[in-house]
Amino acid sequence: MHIDRFPSRLLENAVNEFAKLPGIGRKSALRLVLHLLKQDVQDVEIFGNSLIQLRSEIKHCKICHNISDTDICGICSNPSRNPSLICVVENIKDVMSVENTHQFNGLYHVLGGIISPMDGIGPSDLEIESLVKRAEAGDIDEVILALSTTMEGDTTNFFIFKKLKNTNVKISTLARGVSIGDELEYTDEVTLGRSIVNRMNFEDSIIR
Amino acid sequence: MHIDRFPSRLLENAVNEFAKLPGIGRKSALRLVLHLLKQDVQDVEIFGNSLIQLRSEIKHCKICHNISDTDICGICSNPSRNPSLICVVENIKDVMSVENTHQFNGLYHVLGGIISPMDGIGPSDLEIESLVKRAEAGDIDEVILALSTTMEGDTTNFFIFKKLKNTNVKISTLARGVSIGDELEYTDEVTLGRSIVNRMNFEDSIIR
Repeated sequence: MHIDRFPSRLLENAVNEFAKLPGIGRKSALRLVLHLLKQDVQDVEIFGNSLIQLRSEIKHCKICHNISDTDICGICSNPSRNPSLICVVENIKDVMSVENTHQFNGLYHVLGGIISPMDGIGPSDLEIESLVKRAEAGDIDEVILALSTTMEGDTTNFFIFKKLKNTNVKISTLARGVSIGDELEYTDEVTLGRSIVNRMNFEDSIIR
Repeated sequence: MHIDRFPSRLLENAVNEFAKLPGIGRKSALRLVLHLLKQDVQDVEIFGNSLIQLRSEIKHCKICHNISDTDICGICSNPSRNPSLICVVENIKDVMSVENTHQFNGLYHVLGGIISPMDGIGPSDLEIESLVKRAEAGDIDEVILALSTTMEGDTTNFFIFKKLKNTNVKISTLARGVSIGDELEYTDEVTLGRSIVNRMNFEDSIIR
């Protein structure tokens, strides 16, 4: 079905707007818009306004650059968290992923991306200078680099490592190895090779 | 990734709203919301307002019940269309599908659904009485029933047929047969059987 003949300009506008979203084609957009047409006027207003309000009122934490409803985010302002430990991540989703492990009690630093010359993203487009300032200000014991294990992630790791190596901060990175639940048969050779070289004490590997 | 730890209430609200849409889970909702966060404030306002405006300002044509920006839709008010021919369809999408064939120059009647006792939809929930009134008002030569070839569609067809059989209106339905481009091997037996019984003049079958 081609959907070029809209019975209403309002309908066409709404479909065009929805179809701008990633992964939503024009047929899906029409389906979603027709669904909204069946909802209460009030509910659609709540939906539309929740997006407008999010975009216009959202803030970025002045310390870690995570998104936040306040100038300093809930993690940075939480006195029970360890302010001497910083986990460096690419984006907001990664903060949520690490938080969901319940294994980290330090603070974050959100870069807002990773170095990717192919996409025209260089170090100056990222929150790297502000990370260096946090490290130089003292009170930081360790920076954990928690970026993707891709070429871009490794490049960014190395760039940050060079920037921080003259400070007294310890620099660590996520353990790399065989995923828990993975079968060796399906683990790639590089990961398997590194996990033999960097083999760990058996007692430390037990999940308690 | 569980996404229960949102760094912002605004973000959480927007994700919850998006996840109410059919076929959009919480992870997709988060992806879409983070995409919107990267767009201009103005563009997000246009998006949100296009939905709110659609829902609050949309009208239904007083003649055919299709959605419309005006009291009488663009099809019903078009003087070059044949007002003596009415195509009865289930919903707005079906109007668009028939329009896109460029093969129909009459008017429509949108039922707003089909009779489906399983879903609690009876004849009184649909625009059937208004169709009967249009037929009884005269000036209508033919009503084409263009509903789905399902049990619910057939039930609705038969209900409308009984309501209209005492008027002078000719009642027709879409041709059923082998789809153009289909191989006989994969055509179901019922369709194939009926297309032999209702075989047509060869010259009429040629698409010009």
